Amino acid sequence: MNPDPDYSAAYLTICTDTEDPADAGTSLVFTIGRGNDVQSAAIRALEPHVIGRDVEEVLADLGGMQKELDGDSQLRWLGPETGVMAMAIGAVVNALWDLRARREGRPLWLTLAMLDPEEILDLVDFRYLTDALTREEAREILQHGAEGREERIAAVRAHGVPAYTTTPGWLGYSDEKLRRLLREARDDGFEMVKLKVGADVDDDVRRLALARAEMGEGFPIAVDANQRWDVAEAIEWLNRLAPHDPYWIEEPTFPGDVLAHAAIRRGVGPLQVATGEQGANRIVFKQLLQAGAIDVLQLDATRVAGIGENVANLLLAAKFGVPVCPHAGGVGLCEMVQHLAFFDAVAIGGEDPRRRIEFVDHLHEHFEVPVRVERGAYRAPEEPGGGARMLEASVRDHEFPGGVVWSGEPA
Amino acid sequence: MNPDPDYSAAYLTICTDTEDPADAGTSLVFTIGRGNDVQSAAIRALEPHVIGRDVEEVLADLGGMQKELDGDSQLRWLGPETGVMAMAIGAVVNALWDLRARREGRPLWLTLAMLDPEEILDLVDFRYLTDALTREEAREILQHGAEGREERIAAVRAHGVPAYTTTPGWLGYSDEKLRRLLREARDDGFEMVKLKVGADVDDDVRRLALARAEMGEGFPIAVDANQRWDVAEAIEWLNRLAPHDPYWIEEPTFPGDVLAHAAIRRGVGPLQVATGEQGANRIVFKQLLQAGAIDVLQLDATRVAGIGENVANLLLAAKFGVPVCPHAGGVGLCEMVQHLAFFDAVAIGGEDPRRRIEFVDHLHEHFEVPVRVERGAYRAPEEPGGGARMLEASVRDHEFPGGVVWSGEPA
Repeated sequence: MNPDPDYSAAYLTICTDTEDPADAGTSLVFTIGRGNDVQSAAIRALEPHVIGRDVEEVLADLGGMQKELDGDSQLRWLGPETGVMAMAIGAVVNALWDLRARREGRPLWLTLAMLDPEEILDLVDFRYLTDALTREEAREILQHGAEGREERIAAVRAHGVPAYTTTPGWLGYSDEKLRRLLREARDDGFEMVKLKVGADVDDDVRRLALARAEMGEGFPIAVDANQRWDVAEAIEWLNRLAPHDPYWIEEPTFPGDVLAHAAIRRGVGPLQVATGEQGANRIVFKQLLQAGAIDVLQLDATRVAGIGENVANLLLAAKFGVPVCPHAGGVGLCEMVQHLAFFDAVAIGGEDPRRRIEFVDHLHEHFEVPVRVERGAYRAPEEPGGGARMLEASVRDHEFPGGVVWSGEPA
Repeated sequence: MNPDPDYSAAYLTICTDTEDPADAGTSLVFTIGRGNDVQSAAIRALEPHVIGRDVEEVLADLGGMQKELDGDSQLRWLGPETGVMAMAIGAVVNALWDLRARREGRPLWLTLAMLDPEEILDLVDFRYLTDALTREEAREILQHGAEGREERIAAVRAHGVPAYTTTPGWLGYSDEKLRRLLREARDDGFEMVKLKVGADVDDDVRRLALARAEMGEGFPIAVDANQRWDVAEAIEWLNRLAPHDPYWIEEPTFPGDVLAHAAIRRGVGPLQVATGEQGANRIVFKQLLQAGAIDVLQLDATRVAGIGENVANLLLAAKFGVPVCPHAGGVGLCEMVQHLAFFDAVAIGGEDPRRRIEFVDHLHEHFEVPVRVERGAYRAPEEPGGGARMLEASVRDHEFPGGVVWSGEPA
């Protein structure tokens, strides 16, 4: 489905008028190429809401800021709450969260985890959620999550949050390379891997059988179809894979097709269904959960309208007892989304052996605080901020169209 | 929900290299203000697919063109098939349809109606539809629609397609003005009107009671909430209105919330539920129909990825036996969407007394072919094209930011 990605990002820095140039908030929206210009235009359309505002007032009420941006009716028309404008709002909100965490001197996950339940509730827009999750129900989840918080903070700092790796599973690798990468993944301590599927069913059966033989019975091997199928095709294809015990099927069909996911899940059970990396907003996730369409919710750091929207997604998942296994990879998604997973582990979903963050070992060298994945787990970031800030040289060299990597000359 | 609209449009002209400057295709995307810049950037992102292409080849396979644009994976990432990029694709596709109809010397509705069933099928992307509508099922609908086509063409030319008017129903009018506008609507031959609701329930009850008294028992008076409610609130509010017999409730909640619409419909039946003006794509409409969530499908001319996507929506509605009552108003939506309704009446849904096109008497003077609504019905446009082309002076004076209406000087 994504034959020619050109990993890109709309990169946003919100500066303040203090003398410290580091007193700024950073975020990004991951894209896969030319659409980056459109995404940047959408972020610029939000400037009037941000420029000239009082920093401390804004940072003190980031739920209010997110609702202000969502509520800009002229821009809402372009969604609503979906796609380019939602991602633009997410860029602004996430940059402000980065700034707030930096000013507190904390990693973002800890900034979020130290909020009290009422403050967390204020981040969420409960409009369109109340048929599945009311503010009162969310409060109960958060009050429960506040018990034992200090112990869980210590636990995630000691043990991290488990990761799984997609590195071995891309289409087009030779069998030998697939086997080697699988062995390396296991040797590196990963307790789950994922294979891409959906191009050719016979090839998928062969690769999954090979992976199963390599990793042994019971080792979780997820498969990911990147939206390739309609309902009947998904069920037929997955029934071919079933003898080799895939762990979950990810993105079997269109990300907003709630009823199709539910039909596929009914058709392939007990195989688990996962989706969410292109889930547009809390309302999509609400419906997926209401319809019993998913076993695993895969939120993404830059697809929705920011931290508050993803807090809503975490609360919805907790209400329905579904684990959140964030999507990552791309540009900076690992660096950003880990904060949501650590926050989830501390304050919402609690300890849950089903929680795993995707890991792709790619592009981390460009980030000020690259992820640390050791023995198959993300280690808790301790540096201040939300993870999106890149190295100055990386931004300078890759900026489009002026950066040296675009000039054709050696960087 | 839309407190400060500033009616706008991203206006697209696709020129050819023939010597005739009128040999061009025009379309627009209706917006309500600042987002217009973002929408324009999205349309420009599609230029590489269009500029330099062979006109005749492209016009001969507009279904293929639409699929090519939908399939641009780098841009698809921004949706997928939703929001800003879908509307941009719609702009390009609709401009090309305008050009094709002009070259044929036909109004767009007739160009579409004269296609044979296989040609119409080729316009539709059946991906993600087949759990509700296969190509074979669509073929049956179209073959049925092809019988008696000439008679139906004659009939719609003689009688038009019924309209309903939203002119009396805006919030904030005095009771006296509401009554006067209702009387005028009836005197003008409209057999249905619509009131905006959702700001204050007591006020809505009073206004609906007043309208009911004015128009008499049985006269269809729809109400439109513009997405204001959650499920429980919608049901409670509508139960207050029920004694005054509203004809349908339009946009009770978030446009992509299939399950909420279904729950509301169950809660307020036999009151009809209508939605669609912000339905993002065929997959949303498919689910609304599968879930039994709507009684009326309200497609919009510029919200989805073009004529082909709306042909899919018409076919889905026909499959489920739901009438299509297009949304209009805004800038040029009446001029554009009427072509879909006439095409539907001739070739897909056939004669259906439930079909009515929205009418708002606003901004028609800027269009080369303004709609003709007489005795409560849209009259069949006979001039070539798809309806979006504005008068040169209107474009010149209103172009942002250079046009005279933006200069503060008298136009």
